[in-house]
Amino acid sequence: MRNVTTDNITDVFKGYMGEGMDPRMRELMGALVQHIHDFARETKLTHDEWRAGIAFLEGCAAIESPDRHEFVLASDVLGLSSLIDMLHSDPKATSSSVLGPFHVSGAPPLAVGGDMKRDFGGPLLMVEGVVRDTDGNPIPNAEIDIWQTAPNGLYASQDDDQDMFSFHGLMTLGEDGRYAFTTARPAEYTVPSDGPVGAILRACGRHPWRPSHLHYIVKAEGYKTLVTEIFPQDDPYLDQDTVFGVREDLVMTYVEKPAEAFPQGMAISGQVHDSFLHVAFDVILARV
Amino acid sequence: MRNVTTDNITDVFKGYMGEGMDPRMRELMGALVQHIHDFARETKLTHDEWRAGIAFLEGCAAIESPDRHEFVLASDVLGLSSLIDMLHSDPKATSSSVLGPFHVSGAPPLAVGGDMKRDFGGPLLMVEGVVRDTDGNPIPNAEIDIWQTAPNGLYASQDDDQDMFSFHGLMTLGEDGRYAFTTARPAEYTVPSDGPVGAILRACGRHPWRPSHLHYIVKAEGYKTLVTEIFPQDDPYLDQDTVFGVREDLVMTYVEKPAEAFPQGMAISGQVHDSFLHVAFDVILARV
Repeated sequence: MRNVTTDNITDVFKGYMGEGMDPRMRELMGALVQHIHDFARETKLTHDEWRAGIAFLEGCAAIESPDRHEFVLASDVLGLSSLIDMLHSDPKATSSSVLGPFHVSGAPPLAVGGDMKRDFGGPLLMVEGVVRDTDGNPIPNAEIDIWQTAPNGLYASQDDDQDMFSFHGLMTLGEDGRYAFTTARPAEYTVPSDGPVGAILRACGRHPWRPSHLHYIVKAEGYKTLVTEIFPQDDPYLDQDTVFGVREDLVMTYVEKPAEAFPQGMAISGQVHDSFLHVAFDVILARV
Repeated sequence: MRNVTTDNITDVFKGYMGEGMDPRMRELMGALVQHIHDFARETKLTHDEWRAGIAFLEGCAAIESPDRHEFVLASDVLGLSSLIDMLHSDPKATSSSVLGPFHVSGAPPLAVGGDMKRDFGGPLLMVEGVVRDTDGNPIPNAEIDIWQTAPNGLYASQDDDQDMFSFHGLMTLGEDGRYAFTTARPAEYTVPSDGPVGAILRACGRHPWRPSHLHYIVKAEGYKTLVTEIFPQDDPYLDQDTVFGVREDLVMTYVEKPAEAFPQGMAISGQVHDSFLHVAFDVILARV
């Protein structure tokens, strides 16, 4: 097309796509460019603003590394990652939520009733529940990959004072579908805000905080794998998670219980002092 | 918001923006995220497709350098760069077109009637015209920054066989607004296609070719600076410029003329043989 205009350029783009291309790729590229062009037309985006956008991408590129995923972080704080989670979440099952960058493969086995707290400080927490199908029946032999921050708000990979797999555990469940573990209450924390994404947050008058949470990946044969997080009902950032991860069914409640109520058979390093926090949270998986 | 859903997440995002933020930033971020979310919702973008998008950005990051601007190239082949040029082009003036990555500051002076061809091969081309205002009157003392490929399709910065400023010249015009120079006919060429943007072009069944062109930046006091390109009417890629740079008023015509018609006073290295190509192209600037 030799007479490209602001009105026809989107159709010219679509016309350039070859006949033999993958139909889904055609759908995605057509929709993507339609939205990019509509964004520029609606806002009458200026050259300076375009340059600022390019500088943002180049700034992300400059700090991108195996330990720093700035493009993923951008997707997270713009709500895209959570939106994609929700678009593919089964409405009959527990909601999925963001995987985040702190999952580590190869976590050590954690027995049902095992202890992740060891000698770390912070409030003692006991978590238990059952992995069920959408009819409420326990699913036998499921597996839960669990990870969380230490009480200082840092994951093991961020913290020289933790060993590689502290607060990471892989639990294989029995026929009854029950899981249980002792840990320290996780802490709220900030996403990395010293890069271009942090600058966007500040320019938007936003904070970088996430509410505290426990991460689970739950797998069972014949069921869809669930990547999720659960959040305490009293967290100060519950209504303003900077990565949009909270769903109503992912809110748990900490119940303070006296030391005498601590269940027998739970592993623990040392003793329960005056009281502990208890969470009951069942996980529902949808069939494949 | 503790109950983020696919329907409300865009409003939740907008609600997170602080009251004190810059109004234009609020407009841009709101519109950007509306379009990103609408794109994901409309296409029901999958996790695998999202990962492919992140891998594309990370792939661009991996080859981004002062000599390779892959994000700009992505904007170019998606038509965004041209769209922004057109949105801010004055309809009464000559159309603007993409700057591209090959402009070099500090080009040597080129006299009106000067020669850029020197001893390079390729068809001899003589270009002339007048820089005018929107009423058709010549604009005195304008300046034209001119650059183009050598006949081999390479810019000086891409080609070890050229010196730094070959086929680059900065011409200061007189009271009559007339410009003129002798050069070699520029050649069509491909944008870099060995990176992630090239992979996108191939997946879309597209080629990486641009029609041949002369680049101009035209400046005059009291007028809007014009960044543009002019394209020959007979170029095989005129109707399928991979960066969407062609506008109807930017098409020039090569007229073959006999050697005897070569104007006196034009600089030239060597002699005009049988014939030469002639282009007449006036440039119209809008007032500031």
